[in-house]
Amino acid sequence: MTPPPSRSADGLRGLPDTQRSMRRRNLARVMHAVSAEGPLSRAAVAASTGLTRAAVSTLVDDLVRWDLLEEYGPGRPPAAGRGRPGSALAVSDRGPVGIGAEIGVDHLAVCAVDLRGTVRARAELRGANRGRPPETVLADLALRVRRVVEECGGRGLWPAGLAVAVPGLVARDSRILDRAPNLGWPRTDLGALLPGAPPLSVDNEANYGGLAELWLDPGAPRDFLHVSAEIGIGAALVVDGRLLRGTHGFAGELGHVPVHPDGPACRCGGSGCLERYAGEDAVLRAAGLDPGEGRSSLLAERAARGDRTALRALRGAGTALGIALAGAVNLLDPRAVVVGGELAALAPWVLPPLEEELSRRTGGRDCPVSASRLGKEGPLLGAAHSVVRAVLDDPACVTERS
Amino acid sequence: MTPPPSRSADGLRGLPDTQRSMRRRNLARVMHAVSAEGPLSRAAVAASTGLTRAAVSTLVDDLVRWDLLEEYGPGRPPAAGRGRPGSALAVSDRGPVGIGAEIGVDHLAVCAVDLRGTVRARAELRGANRGRPPETVLADLALRVRRVVEECGGRGLWPAGLAVAVPGLVARDSRILDRAPNLGWPRTDLGALLPGAPPLSVDNEANYGGLAELWLDPGAPRDFLHVSAEIGIGAALVVDGRLLRGTHGFAGELGHVPVHPDGPACRCGGSGCLERYAGEDAVLRAAGLDPGEGRSSLLAERAARGDRTALRALRGAGTALGIALAGAVNLLDPRAVVVGGELAALAPWVLPPLEEELSRRTGGRDCPVSASRLGKEGPLLGAAHSVVRAVLDDPACVTERS
Repeated sequence: MTPPPSRSADGLRGLPDTQRSMRRRNLARVMHAVSAEGPLSRAAVAASTGLTRAAVSTLVDDLVRWDLLEEYGPGRPPAAGRGRPGSALAVSDRGPVGIGAEIGVDHLAVCAVDLRGTVRARAELRGANRGRPPETVLADLALRVRRVVEECGGRGLWPAGLAVAVPGLVARDSRILDRAPNLGWPRTDLGALLPGAPPLSVDNEANYGGLAELWLDPGAPRDFLHVSAEIGIGAALVVDGRLLRGTHGFAGELGHVPVHPDGPACRCGGSGCLERYAGEDAVLRAAGLDPGEGRSSLLAERAARGDRTALRALRGAGTALGIALAGAVNLLDPRAVVVGGELAALAPWVLPPLEEELSRRTGGRDCPVSASRLGKEGPLLGAAHSVVRAVLDDPACVTERS
Repeated sequence: MTPPPSRSADGLRGLPDTQRSMRRRNLARVMHAVSAEGPLSRAAVAASTGLTRAAVSTLVDDLVRWDLLEEYGPGRPPAAGRGRPGSALAVSDRGPVGIGAEIGVDHLAVCAVDLRGTVRARAELRGANRGRPPETVLADLALRVRRVVEECGGRGLWPAGLAVAVPGLVARDSRILDRAPNLGWPRTDLGALLPGAPPLSVDNEANYGGLAELWLDPGAPRDFLHVSAEIGIGAALVVDGRLLRGTHGFAGELGHVPVHPDGPACRCGGSGCLERYAGEDAVLRAAGLDPGEGRSSLLAERAARGDRTALRALRGAGTALGIALAGAVNLLDPRAVVVGGELAALAPWVLPPLEEELSRRTGGRDCPVSASRLGKEGPLLGAAHSVVRAVLDDPACVTERS
């Protein structure tokens, strides 16, 4: 792994604690202003943040030195094309990137997103991870991470952190995959299995999917329930613009909400859980497809052709989702429900029975359901953007990570 | 209704906005310090709040003048008995009271709680409210409120506000009972039907029950799910010490979480909802008792005698609660579940099957279940205390309400 270039923290060194934390907050205010409204002149940054021009100048000097901002001279408009006369500041597209990774039940994916939110590199590997030893899967993942980091390095980009989305439970602020019945893995410490990786964070894929929705869809409400439906089904509960994580960090286990409590046994130890009716494997089986080979795209094809078995399977999945979501909506009263993951691509067939069931069981409460525009990409993008946002929220963190 | 004595806001008048809000915050700091640690000398209040002695003195002068604090001279220890040498400040037991009221499906209750948290007056009326016109029920309630306020008046206490707990949905910051299927009422504006009452707030009974748990049980965690099980079943979701209200204010509708989706129709329009299995009426019916006459106490008696039908009915209720709570715990990952309301008295029979079902369906996650020590009193006490806490949080509010 190419080490990122060294960045000195001159502007912070030697400051007493209160001044240092004030300075860190001001660095974040400048970064956020330029990120949201840039390109901006230094004077415009001062006006937008309420800081003095002199303060802005010293803050900008640090941010430019750390590769977080770029300054364009007069007559040389920034790449974004929204140039203003005079010199202008823009968020750098040659500085740090957030590396996002996803461990799926049947794929691995890695991407790098720069501070402007653009995906700059990507790697993928299809193939079942269920039952494979975690060491082997993580070695595969580490190789893809290295490739993406190297590709970025060739463009002057360096990784500010790596965030890994996993299909299972992760305790708050931990890097340990506590339980992942759909992978069939024991408790796995990703920190130990990804040595030499950029600074690492790990979270449930539905959580990253929900955050991607919140951050990347300009129309997203501040309170919503994001459903991430793959082989496992998870949810992210966004309340007032923040993720509700639960006491242990295990909130959002929608897949194990009982739908028909006397139904078939589930890997979790319960029975009749939502996953047994609306998880990808269950739906493929109900449609007469072998989960080992069949894919949701094949199911969509058949449904589009009017195949009755496929349509019945999708209707069943939608109804089961509607029952589980009726419970969730009655409990949480979200503004909206957004369905992501594999099932997002099946929305034309899944959403109508889902909405019918939900509406009937929630007293006609107004809670619109839609398919995520990010589809299956949500968790991966959310992971990468979580690193980018951490840099925007505390730009000085890059001096500690170097 | 006796109008409260007039209280002038001298200390606040003429101050610019920022100073006024700073002063209001400091008044609250002093009130909370005395409430939590009192009796305290002025010097001890200064030490506890970090305010200067001079500042404390002018703040205390206002709080004493407004009847919120009492000062005892040297040699005259305050009633609480934890006297210190020298003069001491204590929260007043002769100033404002919070009036709590509860509209139950088969009872009305009103109480007054002083700033020390002591219940000072109480009135009750048993009898079915279901199907009675809201106007009649609220006239009955208003009469009890007047009696309680008059009884308080005789002891030098005056109402700072009235909070009404209702068995139905109330939109955020509204005084309108939006839907109450168990009362059979149409949309009802309590503000319009309680003219001349003290400043009014209205909320779902489960919310007030959950807040009572949070405020009155010193061992309550900051994250828990409070179940309020009467004829209707509601829940309060407490997350990080705050009530999760939902977008419209309708969060916590545990009673309409589907338990057996193909089960009997429910008043809500759905079917197989938790209330159809664990609501008081349903349990009494399952035990062969007429809900019109039978009461949970009779059921407890029979269960204690080993009556098989009663035991089976209670086991069924516990199992149904366990299924619905399994969904809620999987979604929310609370630290604990507390069961209140009528079912709290039936805990010895309801909790074991509930816990068994819950544990099996949540992967053995650690989420202890207990019966509320407040039992059926939770919502009424929570309502009254919500008024008291509003006074502690902003003591100057009493100058505006007079």
